Amino acid sequence: MSREIRLNAFDMNCVGHQSPGLWAHPRDRSWQYKDLDYWTGLARTLEAAKFDGLFLADVLGVYDVFHGNLDAALRHSTQVPVNDPLQLVPAMALVTEHLGFGLTASLSFEHPYTFARRLSTLDHLTKGRAGWNIVTSYLDSGARNIGLTGQAAHDDRYDVADEYLEVCYKLWEGSWEDGAVLRDRDRRIFTDPAKVHPIRHKGRYFDVPGIHLSEPSPQRTPVLYQAGASSRGRRFAGAHAECTFVACPSKAVLTKSVADIRAAVAAAGRNPHDVKIFNLQTVIVDATDAQAQAKWQDYRRYISRDGALALGSGWLGIDFGRYSADEPLRHIETNAVQSSVDAFSSADPSKVWTVGELADWIGIGGLGPLFVGGPGTVADLLQEWQDETDVDGFNLAYAVTPETFEDVAAHLVPELQRRGAYKRDYAPGTLREKLFGRGAQLPETHPGAGYRDLRSAAGPRLSAAE
Amino acid sequence: MSREIRLNAFDMNCVGHQSPGLWAHPRDRSWQYKDLDYWTGLARTLEAAKFDGLFLADVLGVYDVFHGNLDAALRHSTQVPVNDPLQLVPAMALVTEHLGFGLTASLSFEHPYTFARRLSTLDHLTKGRAGWNIVTSYLDSGARNIGLTGQAAHDDRYDVADEYLEVCYKLWEGSWEDGAVLRDRDRRIFTDPAKVHPIRHKGRYFDVPGIHLSEPSPQRTPVLYQAGASSRGRRFAGAHAECTFVACPSKAVLTKSVADIRAAVAAAGRNPHDVKIFNLQTVIVDATDAQAQAKWQDYRRYISRDGALALGSGWLGIDFGRYSADEPLRHIETNAVQSSVDAFSSADPSKVWTVGELADWIGIGGLGPLFVGGPGTVADLLQEWQDETDVDGFNLAYAVTPETFEDVAAHLVPELQRRGAYKRDYAPGTLREKLFGRGAQLPETHPGAGYRDLRSAAGPRLSAAE
Repeated sequence: MSREIRLNAFDMNCVGHQSPGLWAHPRDRSWQYKDLDYWTGLARTLEAAKFDGLFLADVLGVYDVFHGNLDAALRHSTQVPVNDPLQLVPAMALVTEHLGFGLTASLSFEHPYTFARRLSTLDHLTKGRAGWNIVTSYLDSGARNIGLTGQAAHDDRYDVADEYLEVCYKLWEGSWEDGAVLRDRDRRIFTDPAKVHPIRHKGRYFDVPGIHLSEPSPQRTPVLYQAGASSRGRRFAGAHAECTFVACPSKAVLTKSVADIRAAVAAAGRNPHDVKIFNLQTVIVDATDAQAQAKWQDYRRYISRDGALALGSGWLGIDFGRYSADEPLRHIETNAVQSSVDAFSSADPSKVWTVGELADWIGIGGLGPLFVGGPGTVADLLQEWQDETDVDGFNLAYAVTPETFEDVAAHLVPELQRRGAYKRDYAPGTLREKLFGRGAQLPETHPGAGYRDLRSAAGPRLSAAE
Repeated sequence: MSREIRLNAFDMNCVGHQSPGLWAHPRDRSWQYKDLDYWTGLARTLEAAKFDGLFLADVLGVYDVFHGNLDAALRHSTQVPVNDPLQLVPAMALVTEHLGFGLTASLSFEHPYTFARRLSTLDHLTKGRAGWNIVTSYLDSGARNIGLTGQAAHDDRYDVADEYLEVCYKLWEGSWEDGAVLRDRDRRIFTDPAKVHPIRHKGRYFDVPGIHLSEPSPQRTPVLYQAGASSRGRRFAGAHAECTFVACPSKAVLTKSVADIRAAVAAAGRNPHDVKIFNLQTVIVDATDAQAQAKWQDYRRYISRDGALALGSGWLGIDFGRYSADEPLRHIETNAVQSSVDAFSSADPSKVWTVGELADWIGIGGLGPLFVGGPGTVADLLQEWQDETDVDGFNLAYAVTPETFEDVAAHLVPELQRRGAYKRDYAPGTLREKLFGRGAQLPETHPGAGYRDLRSAAGPRLSAAE
């Protein structure tokens, strides 16, 4: 059997997620994001196609770098309006049994004491299918609205994040021992108080003296996702992440990213394959190459270049509104973004990309690669990328939703299954068990496992606390 | 037709909510609080019985006043473990069409910018069935875990709350004009930027310059609930609340509370009947008086006195662990709690209550009255209380769940309907329309309506801001 390819669906509680403009396509239904039925239908589609999970992005802020305002973002619904992702999961969990849910939540916006309870609740209600994409910050516009003036220095954010995780691990792993909940009707004892411990955390950023409010959930710590790409971000991911998301436009860039991440995981004392790496990917697939190409040409007519540049300006921190569409990207010299631009340009090193071409690239599915073709063509490409880059799977953005996912289910998944490169059934158990084929809870080699016995001093020192 | 009696169900994402010990009853299912199916079943039961809503309490903290520790709370599952209530609603909304949802959320634990988006999302996903029970604080043990040393002074909390509401109103009512979302496929305009406004809030406690992240939901501002009983709390409720919850053990106390609340609403320039008042109430009803009495005797065997006193100690701020069960309540002289004890004692002024009797009272359904009887007996009592006190309805705690609600559905609701005192069908529209028989959004007389036009200076001044 070929190496297994893992698929995630990438979505957001908004309109046209990473395909600005395509909400106007007659078959796109993303404008129904406010309807639970829309989401439960999507969840059923993904589970039927045996996707590992649905990954819900989020931003608490607006894309206001392009032209220095948010007109383009509003006009083209570039991730605004955007609703809370958390509340979609319970409804989708109700109609599915296996699909995992990766929830994006920035630790800038909620205290770990209350956040840990939200995630424990999610893991309980999904019966162990919860994942958390740890975001340490995002748009400045979001931070300003909760009274922070701009973002804290990049490295400081990760120091806060390390301590934030430490508080969460203590609550999730250490506060309630296994067997604390007895539910003993005869003796009339629900919980054995001797097995519930205050975490007594006193740190640089947080003081949390008390117990966790939730009893242990199936996974205790939800599956941890991270997407940090800086060297400090990679160190953080190396310590904590069980899955990482990258957005690499070429095999060369992806190969390096995968190697760097696995090295960071190894440097943290873990098995380099204890992290599953997913590259952002858009797939337009149909019964034949010709039909897929025709579909792509149809979709392209709906791309909003301004919407795409509003996204790109927010991501890269550069106002593309100051340049004309035919401005070559390599002339845009900004230290902060040059590496992103370089990475992007490397998708075709012989080509000089323009701002307008960048917009068209972003316009369907964001910064990841786009594969267009029949089942064999796309399956070949995915297997080739996996073989050459050591990536574990793909995080599929949509062009038109739910059509993109329905097409993957109808055309791509059967082809990959035929090749022995895709599961025919879900593995049993929680999301963590499905992903790694072992226990429901963090492995012993993960730093979170060091907080299981709060009385011992064995816990790793992740932060300045203690 | 008799005056309509309104019923809410009172619950919490925990075990044995206000009936400590009764989780051990063989028919109680509250220990299944971690299962979505349990909650969707309850929601269906309540909607079939045409309850106005399900009201979800919450605490972010533990009951650690009794004996100065949380052993009794843990042992008897006295509202611990307790999970996030928010995530229950989307699953219940999926299987119902009319039932309203009152969500308890303390404004001590989340910033208004992110909280407003959570509630807008909830109102979208429920199609206008969201309510918010505004809590300004709760247990000290909760506050300590987010780094607050004890609660801020009582009055200060309400100053913060006034400004918190002002931020929410600006986001919900003012940021997006009606008609801002065009979804115009032909012109490729999703939102008209000219109709979306940054709120530019700069206050004493919060600075929120930006726009609301969610487009307007059916109700914009969710139906506002409040339960503050102090004079400052009543003033706050008079300004903001559309529904209030009280927990009065006698008709005399309830009559005064209802009159005080309506006076506070009038003092705020609103119609005194623009607020619906619900008294906490426990009902044990069966086909006959004798069967109901037998059921009650069965339930009583499961009361946990220590669990009840853990609750009572937390609520009243006094350690009942320092007294024996036969200690008369009137000997417990503590200024802070005397009024609560007096109010409680007035349920039967001729009687000297003991600590043990208080525990037995609290033990089934908390501090509200308990009615036990056949359909006619209980209907008589509810109508009598409504007639004499001017209360609008009852917030029904359970003894054993879902049995208590199933019994109300099977025995009490048909009897009230026969008397013309209970709706046979839901009114159309959102929760606010169902409750008040008029528009989906706040009436013009409500202070939140003053923030609809952020460019005018017409908004009321609720806080020290501006």
